[in-house]
Amino acid sequence: MQLNETHRADLRSWVESANTVDTDFPIQNLPFGMFRRDGESARAGVAIGDQIFDLTAALKAGLFEAEAEEAARLAAGPALNDLMAADPKMHTALRRRLSQLLAAENPDRERLSAMASTLLVPMADAQLELPAVIGSFTDFLTSIYHTERGGRVTRPDSPVPAPFRYLPIAYNGRATSVRASGEPVRRPNGQWRTAEGKVEFGPCRQLDFELELGTFVGRGNELGEPISIEEAPDRIFGFCLLNDWSARDVQRWESALGPFLSKSLSTTISCWVVTAQALAPFRAPAFARPEGDPAPLPYLYSARDQAEGGIDLNLHAYLLTPRMRSEGTPAARLCRTNFVHMYWTVAQMLTHHMSNGCNMRPGDLFGSGTTSGPLDENRACLSEITTRGAQSFTLPNGETRTWLEDGDEVIFRARAERAGYRSIGFGECRARVAPSPPWPKPKS
Amino acid sequence: MQLNETHRADLRSWVESANTVDTDFPIQNLPFGMFRRDGESARAGVAIGDQIFDLTAALKAGLFEAEAEEAARLAAGPALNDLMAADPKMHTALRRRLSQLLAAENPDRERLSAMASTLLVPMADAQLELPAVIGSFTDFLTSIYHTERGGRVTRPDSPVPAPFRYLPIAYNGRATSVRASGEPVRRPNGQWRTAEGKVEFGPCRQLDFELELGTFVGRGNELGEPISIEEAPDRIFGFCLLNDWSARDVQRWESALGPFLSKSLSTTISCWVVTAQALAPFRAPAFARPEGDPAPLPYLYSARDQAEGGIDLNLHAYLLTPRMRSEGTPAARLCRTNFVHMYWTVAQMLTHHMSNGCNMRPGDLFGSGTTSGPLDENRACLSEITTRGAQSFTLPNGETRTWLEDGDEVIFRARAERAGYRSIGFGECRARVAPSPPWPKPKS
Repeated sequence: MQLNETHRADLRSWVESANTVDTDFPIQNLPFGMFRRDGESARAGVAIGDQIFDLTAALKAGLFEAEAEEAARLAAGPALNDLMAADPKMHTALRRRLSQLLAAENPDRERLSAMASTLLVPMADAQLELPAVIGSFTDFLTSIYHTERGGRVTRPDSPVPAPFRYLPIAYNGRATSVRASGEPVRRPNGQWRTAEGKVEFGPCRQLDFELELGTFVGRGNELGEPISIEEAPDRIFGFCLLNDWSARDVQRWESALGPFLSKSLSTTISCWVVTAQALAPFRAPAFARPEGDPAPLPYLYSARDQAEGGIDLNLHAYLLTPRMRSEGTPAARLCRTNFVHMYWTVAQMLTHHMSNGCNMRPGDLFGSGTTSGPLDENRACLSEITTRGAQSFTLPNGETRTWLEDGDEVIFRARAERAGYRSIGFGECRARVAPSPPWPKPKS
Repeated sequence: MQLNETHRADLRSWVESANTVDTDFPIQNLPFGMFRRDGESARAGVAIGDQIFDLTAALKAGLFEAEAEEAARLAAGPALNDLMAADPKMHTALRRRLSQLLAAENPDRERLSAMASTLLVPMADAQLELPAVIGSFTDFLTSIYHTERGGRVTRPDSPVPAPFRYLPIAYNGRATSVRASGEPVRRPNGQWRTAEGKVEFGPCRQLDFELELGTFVGRGNELGEPISIEEAPDRIFGFCLLNDWSARDVQRWESALGPFLSKSLSTTISCWVVTAQALAPFRAPAFARPEGDPAPLPYLYSARDQAEGGIDLNLHAYLLTPRMRSEGTPAARLCRTNFVHMYWTVAQMLTHHMSNGCNMRPGDLFGSGTTSGPLDENRACLSEITTRGAQSFTLPNGETRTWLEDGDEVIFRARAERAGYRSIGFGECRARVAPSPPWPKPKS
């Protein structure tokens, strides 16, 4: 991943809120998203501090030229798919220009500041939407820690399935039910088998979250035409946080051909797409496989991917219960993990996904799988934290939980931090559990 | 399912080829599809004998009015999704009017015959395309015979997985790789484990077909809002034949969370959508569950679905090898089965799919799973026919096969037949196996 002047730690913005220590959106980040204000149609923007830089307004004001202008025009559609589809050179050009425009040291600073009311929309006044039309959603299983903790209960002799170390295991998810952060998630109805062997149907009783990183595909491929792992990094546009809501009771019972209704109830993602370019300073070596594990097969191996395929990204999950909300208590942290714990890199995931010739399209989304690490505090779903519901846990305010209850809100945050670089974040991935719908009455 | 005058066996068309005994497309069928002629954009048509009735031309000629006109306009988009989304009353109105227009006994017959060159396009001159933008594809597993034959090898003590009799098992498929009949299917590259325990990657060596029925969803549902089984039949627009190509060596190895790359290589469908209304005369009781099997849970049970949820539809699979082609031998039949063998009805599949609130959209497609029945001749994939590759079989010309070879062509046909009614068919679902692509070279 190439570093350039847009990554310099000493860059500051004339948008003052972008210079605070704790903002997720300093000028080094520049993530893309789609936003809407009351009564207006959705348009593309870039997060900067607590503001949204309005790409359409900036285009109209003539602030872009050449490749950067072309890229900004691609972003002016009803979603970011066309921008995602572009050559990474275009992304670089747009990023450089955005960095110049928003920099404090900037020949046009006076003029831009004067136009601030046109160019900037306060995040507080906008509704964020899904950044892309997500044509397909795939969910991987790439943390060996998550896999092993789950497997210890069901397959104690061999907790990690045999293919895990040879390929990034995945299943097709449901794209229609991917939703933007903030939208409530209805507890699903579903079927399960009780410990006594009775099969029942009703509101799911073991609702869980899974803390994942989502990856948006950039340029796609034609059916029947795989790509090499050397090419894969150029096909990745950016990342978001992803909550792969899971109905565990349903999942255990239904999964003869993998998870289905236990997952398609909804998937929540954070709305700002943090680009691969913004994360360049935070790349890390691929997972260090323990002695005895097989090396990746040649189609999943490149020296560059081994050297910098990982991402050093801290990931946190919080729970906010109705009682915490009413008492004004802050959300309780349930998990703290890092994406370096993943056994497979995102380039390996994408290369494997396309290896049979399966065609992917710009805006296609894949989840990393639960991002658990080796420590107890790295457990990134309730099923791990409660050993599949066997032990409840106590929250700081004395409440206990085993699974999610109605009204509970799950919040993910992420932060890339590295000495010598400005930290960047993802904003929130947040959703509240709503009660399950009544079963529909038959037509009379 | 309501029968009306469009189903009358004595109806004949002024399009003479629709009156032959063996046509799939008599006037009682009237399936919808999208077709294209050289240099023109795709448009909607209705199959009648060996002709396509051009809906756009008929609209321009003012042949529709009221609800039928509205429905024909919905079909005039770039795909049939809007027509599928309409109220079934509109489908009925359009079907009645098409039946009148194409009937031999018809006050306007002279005028229509005179316009034949405008209204009709010979099928031989047109290219058929996918009938809808298929936003999602789901694949079920609902033949207990297919399931049991597969399970006997892997789980001899309990060949049918526990949930099979309680819910229609399914997994999310890949919608981007669904292709129209006629497009070749490239042998995929993939990963498998050999009998000696070695993990390899290369062109799949156990390529198989699966003979399935596909169902197109009509009106969809909102996320979080399931529908009742009484409502489900009104949400089903129509049907096609579906070849769920399967890389068996890959499937056995990768399927920790269900099939993934072993299936997403491609899925071929026939291009004419035979409507639920056209199949009304061929409905049958739901599968007669053997003594001791559980009754469907209440959310999957309705008296009407039990009485007429099945479909009496004969399904055939053929193989045409390169040698047969060069020798002019006809394709060899590999399978002859019937959709009445399916354990679950399409209404049960759809109701279950939406039961967790998963939102489906018009044009969403689901496959029934391999449609095998109890007899040897009912085995609807090679894995069953060869007992998972253990026995090869001999074709009429003396060739043998275990799995599909490059150049082999798989052809599905279907025919609904019932005393007192005119038989209808689906046209072909056909595709040839092309060699696997060379693995892409890394960028230099």
